[in-house]
Amino acid sequence: FLIPGKEKCLISYFHMYGRYTQELGVYAKEEAARLRESGQRRSVSRTLDLLEYDKGRCAKCRICTVRCQKFLISRVGEDWIFLILLGLLMALVSWVMDFCIAICLQAQKWMYGGLDSNVFLQYLAWVTYPVVLITFSAGFTQILAPQAVGSGIPEMKTILRGVVLKEYLTFKTFVAKVIGLTCALGSGMPLGKEGPFVHIASLCAALLSKFMSLFGGIYENESRNIEMLAAACAVGVGCCFAAPIGGVLFSIEVTSTFFAVRNYWRGFFAATFSAFIFRVLAVWNRDEETITALFKTSFRLDFPFDLQELPAFAVIGIANGFGGALFVYLNRLIVQFMRKQKAINRFLMKKRLLYPALVTLLISTLTFPPGFGQFMAGKLTQKESLVTLLDNRTWAKQGIAEEFDYIGHSEAWKHPQVNVFVTLVLFIVMKFWMSALATTIPVPCGAFMPVFVIGAAFGRLVGESMAAWFPDGIHTDGTIYPIVPGGYAVVGAAALSGAVTHTVSTAVIVFELTGQISHILPVMIAVILANAVAQSLQPSLYDSIIRIKKLPYLPELGWGHHEKYNIRVEDIMVRDVRYITLNCSYRDLHNVLLTGHLKTLALVESTESMILLGSIERAQLQALLSLQLGRPRRLAYIRERAVEDKKRLSVVSNDSSENSSHRASQEVRFQISTEDSSLSPTRPVPLKPLKPALKRSSVVERPTEIPTGPHDHSGIALKNLFCASPDTEALEVREPCPQIHPTYTNTHTHTHTQSEWEEKQLDEQVNFNNCKIDPAPFQLVERTSLHKTHTIFSLLGLDHAFVTSIGRLIGVVSLKELRKAIEGSVTVKGAKVRPPLASFRDSGTSSSENEATELHKLWDRHKSMPLPREHTPSESDEKSQ
Amino acid sequence: FLIPGKEKCLISYFHMYGRYTQELGVYAKEEAARLRESGQRRSVSRTLDLLEYDKGRCAKCRICTVRCQKFLISRVGEDWIFLILLGLLMALVSWVMDFCIAICLQAQKWMYGGLDSNVFLQYLAWVTYPVVLITFSAGFTQILAPQAVGSGIPEMKTILRGVVLKEYLTFKTFVAKVIGLTCALGSGMPLGKEGPFVHIASLCAALLSKFMSLFGGIYENESRNIEMLAAACAVGVGCCFAAPIGGVLFSIEVTSTFFAVRNYWRGFFAATFSAFIFRVLAVWNRDEETITALFKTSFRLDFPFDLQELPAFAVIGIANGFGGALFVYLNRLIVQFMRKQKAINRFLMKKRLLYPALVTLLISTLTFPPGFGQFMAGKLTQKESLVTLLDNRTWAKQGIAEEFDYIGHSEAWKHPQVNVFVTLVLFIVMKFWMSALATTIPVPCGAFMPVFVIGAAFGRLVGESMAAWFPDGIHTDGTIYPIVPGGYAVVGAAALSGAVTHTVSTAVIVFELTGQISHILPVMIAVILANAVAQSLQPSLYDSIIRIKKLPYLPELGWGHHEKYNIRVEDIMVRDVRYITLNCSYRDLHNVLLTGHLKTLALVESTESMILLGSIERAQLQALLSLQLGRPRRLAYIRERAVEDKKRLSVVSNDSSENSSHRASQEVRFQISTEDSSLSPTRPVPLKPLKPALKRSSVVERPTEIPTGPHDHSGIALKNLFCASPDTEALEVREPCPQIHPTYTNTHTHTHTQSEWEEKQLDEQVNFNNCKIDPAPFQLVERTSLHKTHTIFSLLGLDHAFVTSIGRLIGVVSLKELRKAIEGSVTVKGAKVRPPLASFRDSGTSSSENEATELHKLWDRHKSMPLPREHTPSESDEKSQ
Repeated sequence: FLIPGKEKCLISYFHMYGRYTQELGVYAKEEAARLRESGQRRSVSRTLDLLEYDKGRCAKCRICTVRCQKFLISRVGEDWIFLILLGLLMALVSWVMDFCIAICLQAQKWMYGGLDSNVFLQYLAWVTYPVVLITFSAGFTQILAPQAVGSGIPEMKTILRGVVLKEYLTFKTFVAKVIGLTCALGSGMPLGKEGPFVHIASLCAALLSKFMSLFGGIYENESRNIEMLAAACAVGVGCCFAAPIGGVLFSIEVTSTFFAVRNYWRGFFAATFSAFIFRVLAVWNRDEETITALFKTSFRLDFPFDLQELPAFAVIGIANGFGGALFVYLNRLIVQFMRKQKAINRFLMKKRLLYPALVTLLISTLTFPPGFGQFMAGKLTQKESLVTLLDNRTWAKQGIAEEFDYIGHSEAWKHPQVNVFVTLVLFIVMKFWMSALATTIPVPCGAFMPVFVIGAAFGRLVGESMAAWFPDGIHTDGTIYPIVPGGYAVVGAAALSGAVTHTVSTAVIVFELTGQISHILPVMIAVILANAVAQSLQPSLYDSIIRIKKLPYLPELGWGHHEKYNIRVEDIMVRDVRYITLNCSYRDLHNVLLTGHLKTLALVESTESMILLGSIERAQLQALLSLQLGRPRRLAYIRERAVEDKKRLSVVSNDSSENSSHRASQEVRFQISTEDSSLSPTRPVPLKPLKPALKRSSVVERPTEIPTGPHDHSGIALKNLFCASPDTEALEVREPCPQIHPTYTNTHTHTHTQSEWEEKQLDEQVNFNNCKIDPAPFQLVERTSLHKTHTIFSLLGLDHAFVTSIGRLIGVVSLKELRKAIEGSVTVKGAKVRPPLASFRDSGTSSSENEATELHKLWDRHKSMPLPREHTPSESDEKSQ
Repeated sequence: FLIPGKEKCLISYFHMYGRYTQELGVYAKEEAARLRESGQRRSVSRTLDLLEYDKGRCAKCRICTVRCQKFLISRVGEDWIFLILLGLLMALVSWVMDFCIAICLQAQKWMYGGLDSNVFLQYLAWVTYPVVLITFSAGFTQILAPQAVGSGIPEMKTILRGVVLKEYLTFKTFVAKVIGLTCALGSGMPLGKEGPFVHIASLCAALLSKFMSLFGGIYENESRNIEMLAAACAVGVGCCFAAPIGGVLFSIEVTSTFFAVRNYWRGFFAATFSAFIFRVLAVWNRDEETITALFKTSFRLDFPFDLQELPAFAVIGIANGFGGALFVYLNRLIVQFMRKQKAINRFLMKKRLLYPALVTLLISTLTFPPGFGQFMAGKLTQKESLVTLLDNRTWAKQGIAEEFDYIGHSEAWKHPQVNVFVTLVLFIVMKFWMSALATTIPVPCGAFMPVFVIGAAFGRLVGESMAAWFPDGIHTDGTIYPIVPGGYAVVGAAALSGAVTHTVSTAVIVFELTGQISHILPVMIAVILANAVAQSLQPSLYDSIIRIKKLPYLPELGWGHHEKYNIRVEDIMVRDVRYITLNCSYRDLHNVLLTGHLKTLALVESTESMILLGSIERAQLQALLSLQLGRPRRLAYIRERAVEDKKRLSVVSNDSSENSSHRASQEVRFQISTEDSSLSPTRPVPLKPLKPALKRSSVVERPTEIPTGPHDHSGIALKNLFCASPDTEALEVREPCPQIHPTYTNTHTHTHTQSEWEEKQLDEQVNFNNCKIDPAPFQLVERTSLHKTHTIFSLLGLDHAFVTSIGRLIGVVSLKELRKAIEGSVTVKGAKVRPPLASFRDSGTSSSENEATELHKLWDRHKSMPLPREHTPSESDEKSQ
């Protein structure tokens, strides 16, 4: 479950700090694309000018063509072209997949039906088919692209926050996801297509964007790509359920923290177009007569429900809230159980396809219609059972199921011996754990649809009970309005899926799926209650998966806690910041790189002033060091020495005094440089040291290429640097530990000389000339509240921010500290930070206030440490007076 | 139309820079509230402890009470309590208002009906009633709270962006808005209640929040208040239309730029509760049998529309797009016409109530049922006409209106001589300009509902035409499905209101209003097309009002323009930044305050280094100056001098040398200080001047009270400062020009002495000790793109940002520059910034590229000016070496 790109969480969404931090290659490519585009346009218009003077035969024709070409090129960059293409593509993918899945399911039914002479053969056919399909799906995905496993929504959430997850948006993943999902759903397991569809749509958008970038330059822009990905998520849900509005809202709720309203129309436009094409395809295929909802209901319009039924709807909401939390918990429990049991784990790691096969075998055995399946409508596919559950007729009058005639698929719910209530209860219980188990299979699959069906079944159960309790309806005066259990099913479906995903927009999806909005108030009430309960008990399914997969994501702040307004950045920040000064030596650089482990280092003016000038990436500093100590310079030095030696040899060194003087001069040079470096932390800073460095680095518009990889650092210092010593905590930048280069032994210098040379090199002052400095890193002040910090981090997609006080650096806050502070069990200054959404859990108690924590200790430690600002006031006071 | 609080656009939403910039009073109040709360809690628990030992008779009872009290106090802070109260309140307000409006309208009908013997009396009654109501409404609003005039959505949009508009959220405004709106709508004019309801809900939230802050401390938090205001906007729309989902979405689209998804549930929760109560009140009042939609339709479910009808729906969408743009344009035109005609303007300013009365007279005359009103269904109220327009029966078969029987209100559309099509066309045309005119009346009113009705009428027109054209429906095989003109009306209503407001969520509102979602695809298609057309032609109605009222708001970036990625901050920033140095004199401060006009000034380390240390508000600096030159210090000086003089007099000054020596010493002191100040811009900066100042100002946790108002600055310098000389461009801070204080003449000093004293004071170095410095103002780098800048400004609600390059200040960008750059007609480096949403307007042309603009000139001017960073490199180079 570990993601390859996890540690490379380059935050790139709102990298507001200009382009300095971008990879050079990207910038160059963009420039090239822009130049190319403008060149193309110019050439087109020039051709046009030429052609207009050319009065040849087909000149008009050609002018027209060129004009069209020009128009197309200018148009291809427009967003709506992209969105239409995306919508069209996704509608086609969705429809083709649905078609294939339907064929797969029909094939199973056909096999099962054809073998009705022998129950054992029937069982074999019923069981083997899904096992083969799931195993194939798991194997195929495993081989082609393991990133395609699972829902994809958690990953999309992380990607939309600005984290780059490797290989998650490639063509390979697309193929694996589409084929894997088709097979998985074709097997008839309780799996959904909605989560994967979000991922597939994003893949489509990414690939389409790559394809379109052949025509124009703007497709290279990263923030545009993020906008398009957000729209793609809406398209994914929209064309999966033919629910454009619900799709947009669901995708916003599930993937975004802050939503740019200006992107709203993109989602609506693409999702509507996609849903439209998706349904039109069904009409053209003669499946439907006209465009209608996917699971059309036909409830009574004039009196959809009675006011007195509302408590029943509220009960559905609350119960489904608990159910949703239980589902998320169960799902996580299964995953954790499988991981913890080392024996099982080791065995399964060897035979990767065994787990899917076993789970499928278990589930399909239990649903075998002549077996246990007869008590839980095992014959029905997911779609069929949903259709029957949303039926507007009442199944059970007075609790007796046989009283009326079932037609079509509804027959499956009828069992000669067993009450319809028992069938429903069994269906709910069995499907519940089956779905929780099935979604842990490593195939592309979602959990929305199974949960939706379970919710509908629960709603139906309550509805049927109500109908049995009040056979003539509750309404007392005049007309009899019998209770509609189908309406309860709609409410239940929305509530349970809302509880599991922590979204409100499932209500809208339900209306669009059923084509009726008459139950809007019950649905809204139930969904809100379910959300309130579920959010106070468990994280959403997607957040749970994010935690399981340890994706780099910032948890949400909970419902209105006062505490989050009272905690300040100064309470959670790390005060022991690793920084480099503008006039530090390479040795300082080396030491800082050895001890710290942050990806970005602060650049301050000097140790005394601590004025923050900018931040530099670790890789940049490593490049600087390897440039200073690297092979080319060493070889140059050796060559120089060799020339000197040769010269000395050629004059047949009889003069030893010359040699000694040479050594002396060398020593002097050495001394000077040591002095320079040893003094640097304490010596008085030169009068205006800032200017030259500033001048040097401010002109870096396109810095020359620096070798970033540690290609030829055989030196001792660099070795130390890259092969982290055990006492430094897990270096985040894991560069391969370089072996001592074989060519090194060819050089004629001794190790002694080399280390001496290295020492000398280390003592030189760092030249930040060619270094890419981020000149405006994000800054906070000490008194910024946790709430605001969280808002800013989520808004801008930061992964760290420096804490400054009037220009001086005093601390740093990274995602880690913030996550710790939010996730709770952190007591700072007596204020307890509760875990998010815990308002229902421990509202009354406030006993655990003096719980000592890691952070508290940190706080104390740094308080006792002399801060840089505190040990120089007298000196500087003197100076200014 | 000028707003009093306009110039005081304190950006406070995401003021991430701690609390330094907050008003002291607010901070103190918060602290006090927190202390009070914690004290209260402690006392409650102490009472509890005491009681548990007390074994008296009613001890149990009292324990219970105290426990309840404790529970309530702990609960009252929860968001959901607040939201429930808000929802309840708004539902009641909405219902009571609807009730009153219905009574008003009935009264008019009753009067009109009772006087049917005499047409002239009838006319008088018909006309006088609305004129009186509107005039009362206008007068009442004018007197009580002029801020209540108009829709309120533009103001809420501005407030939610973080701008503080004075008096917009007060109780007075609430009363004025509620009563004014009731009267305005009761008059039967084509006005809406939706916009004002957003404002009323926000008012409710603000007042409720103020009320609740009596119980707990958290209601003081500003970012929480903003969250609650956003939820209140949703409640406003939600309880106005009984449309919770549409309300939430509409309010998001209309008021937000970036939406925090974590606030989503707040809106849903409150809006659902509010809509629920609103409808339950109707049921309890026996208006309805159960909870249903407000304008329930009963279209056919099985075959809502044919695929081949879609082009007609698309036509409605496109036509309504043009119509929406025309409406916005017309509305603006009327306002601008009334403003420009100075004669009219002057006359109307005198007789403020004349304009509303005249407009009402005109409109009600035209709708007089026996007169012209008979051709445009003038008899019907807005609600009645909407109900008839959404009717599921076809009015005109084969174009002949008489063929079938009209019942109820539909009768009004039938005219013996005139075709129903003519009636519809007349209705549309007349209502169109009437609504545009009526919404300019200075009463609380919205434009959503009138536009909605016009759209429905247009849709009906198209639908009836289609029905006349295809009497047996379009569908060819088998069953006959006649065309449903009511469906067209729904589509038209959503499309036109969407076009006017530039929103997509009108689609959802329509579904919730009608209770049917069967026409989802036509509605979505029409709304999106209408939006595309309208957005490319005109701003939304609300943005148009924002521009008319000149509210401080940042316009949106348009649909996918490439240019916005290519323009950089360095192209639009102002390079001539006003700044103050850390060791400047009061004279420098004075000069800077005189020349600049920004609200915030940059504080840099020194003129040479230009390192940005923070920013200081103008008011703070003025306070510093007035403290230095103010009366208390001058009086102290005078007293000191008087004492000296007295001493001199008492020793009978026979020693003139003493006197002269005194003068000399004074002169020396004077000289020292002049030297100090005259050198300050050029003298070499002391070695480490930063520390003492930093130390001084970094400890300002609770700065002592500084008098911010210019109460007693009679000095010449201050007079200059506050009464801006004509050559300084419009000072934004317009303080009252202080008269020379009468008490001043009582002091015994001569003007000469005073000015001398003042000069001396001005030459002292500024003590930033008690000054509130914002230590981390927002910084950008030169290469940040316009797109990113816009995003950051909208996200964080900034009004200016400093542009820095490795710590050095090089420019400043404020909302003004950004607005100019976005609003177009700005050419920077050959890239033309097109106005937003102009992609449909001038996509092919690129002729106006070399259009010289103000900004360009600015650019050239600053290029020719020597920049601070350019004239010191040699000097600093020397120093560092």
